[in-house]
Amino acid sequence: MSVDRDRLRADIEANAEFGTVESDAGRGRTVLTGSEADGQARERLVDRLEAAGLEVRVDPVGNVAGRWVPDGVSPDVAPIALGSHLDSVPRGGIFDGPLGVYAALEAVRAIQESATTPERPLEVVSFTEEEGAQFGVGTLGSSVAADRLSVEEAHALTNDAGETLEERLEGIGFVGSDEVDPSTWNAWLEVHVEQDTKLESAGIPIGVVNSISGITNCTATVSGEANHAGATSMADRRDALTAASEFVVDVERIAKGVTDDHPTAVATVGRQDVEPNVRNIVPGRVRMEMDVRSVEADAIDAIVERSAERLERLESERPVETSFDRHRDSPPVHLSDRCVDAIGRATDRLDVEATTMHSAAIHDTGNVAAMTDAAMLFAPSRDGVSHSPLEWTDWDDCATSAAVLGAAALELA
Amino acid sequence: MSVDRDRLRADIEANAEFGTVESDAGRGRTVLTGSEADGQARERLVDRLEAAGLEVRVDPVGNVAGRWVPDGVSPDVAPIALGSHLDSVPRGGIFDGPLGVYAALEAVRAIQESATTPERPLEVVSFTEEEGAQFGVGTLGSSVAADRLSVEEAHALTNDAGETLEERLEGIGFVGSDEVDPSTWNAWLEVHVEQDTKLESAGIPIGVVNSISGITNCTATVSGEANHAGATSMADRRDALTAASEFVVDVERIAKGVTDDHPTAVATVGRQDVEPNVRNIVPGRVRMEMDVRSVEADAIDAIVERSAERLERLESERPVETSFDRHRDSPPVHLSDRCVDAIGRATDRLDVEATTMHSAAIHDTGNVAAMTDAAMLFAPSRDGVSHSPLEWTDWDDCATSAAVLGAAALELA
Repeated sequence: MSVDRDRLRADIEANAEFGTVESDAGRGRTVLTGSEADGQARERLVDRLEAAGLEVRVDPVGNVAGRWVPDGVSPDVAPIALGSHLDSVPRGGIFDGPLGVYAALEAVRAIQESATTPERPLEVVSFTEEEGAQFGVGTLGSSVAADRLSVEEAHALTNDAGETLEERLEGIGFVGSDEVDPSTWNAWLEVHVEQDTKLESAGIPIGVVNSISGITNCTATVSGEANHAGATSMADRRDALTAASEFVVDVERIAKGVTDDHPTAVATVGRQDVEPNVRNIVPGRVRMEMDVRSVEADAIDAIVERSAERLERLESERPVETSFDRHRDSPPVHLSDRCVDAIGRATDRLDVEATTMHSAAIHDTGNVAAMTDAAMLFAPSRDGVSHSPLEWTDWDDCATSAAVLGAAALELA
Repeated sequence: MSVDRDRLRADIEANAEFGTVESDAGRGRTVLTGSEADGQARERLVDRLEAAGLEVRVDPVGNVAGRWVPDGVSPDVAPIALGSHLDSVPRGGIFDGPLGVYAALEAVRAIQESATTPERPLEVVSFTEEEGAQFGVGTLGSSVAADRLSVEEAHALTNDAGETLEERLEGIGFVGSDEVDPSTWNAWLEVHVEQDTKLESAGIPIGVVNSISGITNCTATVSGEANHAGATSMADRRDALTAASEFVVDVERIAKGVTDDHPTAVATVGRQDVEPNVRNIVPGRVRMEMDVRSVEADAIDAIVERSAERLERLESERPVETSFDRHRDSPPVHLSDRCVDAIGRATDRLDVEATTMHSAAIHDTGNVAAMTDAAMLFAPSRDGVSHSPLEWTDWDDCATSAAVLGAAALELA
């Protein structure tokens, strides 16, 4: 089988016309779920799937699937599903999502044109609202498909304009009545851009993703008393920022301690809001948002628990009050050895260099992996940039990812 | 001599009608330099000065002075000057500034009505733009009067609307051609609200201010690299916030060390801005604003120098770059023993309890003290609140401050 680099490129570039944005450098797009641009991108995908002989289904939250049943294969045999998403963040790039969808379609077309006939149907899938940029819930479509979120809950989500997901999807004609159910798939593979520099730095075109980091988010607050920066002696202060700063330094120390045993573990205080945040007033309150990740749940728990203990200890060391809230847990996902091995055999067969890695970002595959065997392939991201018009993956690397995807699908089928 | 509490109260309450603001509690006003409210407040002051027989002058930056030359006193004798300011911060209180101006007028009226004739002229002064709330430079009028800022520089300052001070003052008819020159005064006294709780806590009605803290402002920045909170390992990070947090903790430690020898020394990191300040991005840059105060310049220098050294050392300890800018120095001011002693004799004579203290906030007196003998009197602030409609000083305390001011002026005259 042989993928057509230019056909794949033409698909990605045509898709990039929808929601295209002005940019001094690079090429960007804004494709928010339920927008006109999203409708156009979906319509074109449906056309392209049908042009390749795939039978298209749309489920109630707008997940799109196109199935090809090869001659001689029973339509009841569980398919190999391949795909990703078409939505973007505001002013996002043209590869994050669409590469995975159109690499899947290109892989199917290449297999159709090859001498090899797979023993299972092949399915190309595009999930709704992966970015969560419009309705606030990331990997929304795959969460519904994986029974982690009900259709009713999803439909009732609102955007900033107060419109529901259901209204917006109806507006673009993408509330379907078909099923897109990962539990009926034999296996799932997703191509995605790496969004980091490991592949680029190593000069390797394919990352074989065998795990997805869990993500836990916490909010920590420190309350003291806002006061005059001149009149309040050092001894009389209840400075929330000096206390919070001790916490920030110690979160880093705690996380570094955990990395000895768990090298993928990371903890970040990415946001810190000081009140009143005026030069000549002793800070009265600091609110911090923490992001903790690891492919091992134990490492996340260790960092979170030690950080919470450290924060609470501030109350006995300084005249402050604290609160700690662990409010989001997305557990680590260990992907299927069967799928990872299939990708390995595919890269061997195609003589493509590959390296095994984890994904530090969440993807739809995290949901699908709860229902069937799943793995991911990463393509290199120039300078590691994503969610930006500067996001870029070379067309040769795009084609390589589609080729490996197709070969791996054949290994699995 | 006997001050009239109700006459003083009527003056302050009438002045509070200009720029009055809605407030659920307390009584507030917004009197920005050059505004209609400022014009009204000034016009009323001029009327009240003239009603008391004072001859009014207005200088090019709108400083207002009214002089009373007692019978038998040569107009060439250097006067005793008393006063403060009429402008306010947005939604400020009714005492901060006006108490000092109208206590001065009430003191002069009480002396005029008394059996005692001073041997020097008495002058009541209101300085322009003490708060710096409209044109960005605090103690503006007294800075010009003390030759620390030229009339031309002051006139060219602009407000947020792009209007110059000169335009605004012309708009309300307060660009004068007279001189208001502290170097021609024999002495200066300013009554002001304490803006802290020391007097209230001690139950003492008069603070005798013998020094004004110097204030030094610095900006410190830490630059690392913004990066993905999941994909960037702990070892690869250039986290600006963890580095900045070490600095914040150490500034506190440095200041506490200095207070052993210099108890008035304080250092505050009151403002900290994190970029991009997003939960799942490693902070790339942190900008901090520091406020350092002490009545001793050595203590300020020690804190600033040790803080700057600590910041710079971060560059060898962490993969960050730093910058430190000491951009404003208002040196400590030691007020005149002669004036402080005169206030002491006045409180003894009136049998009013008083305590000696320093001012942690800047006042016009800091400028005047460079030109002539000067001191301040503080009146109690309820709960230490100022710059708020909740600012409050009991009318009895207002009257006591005017009585002590008048008695001290007689001691000096």
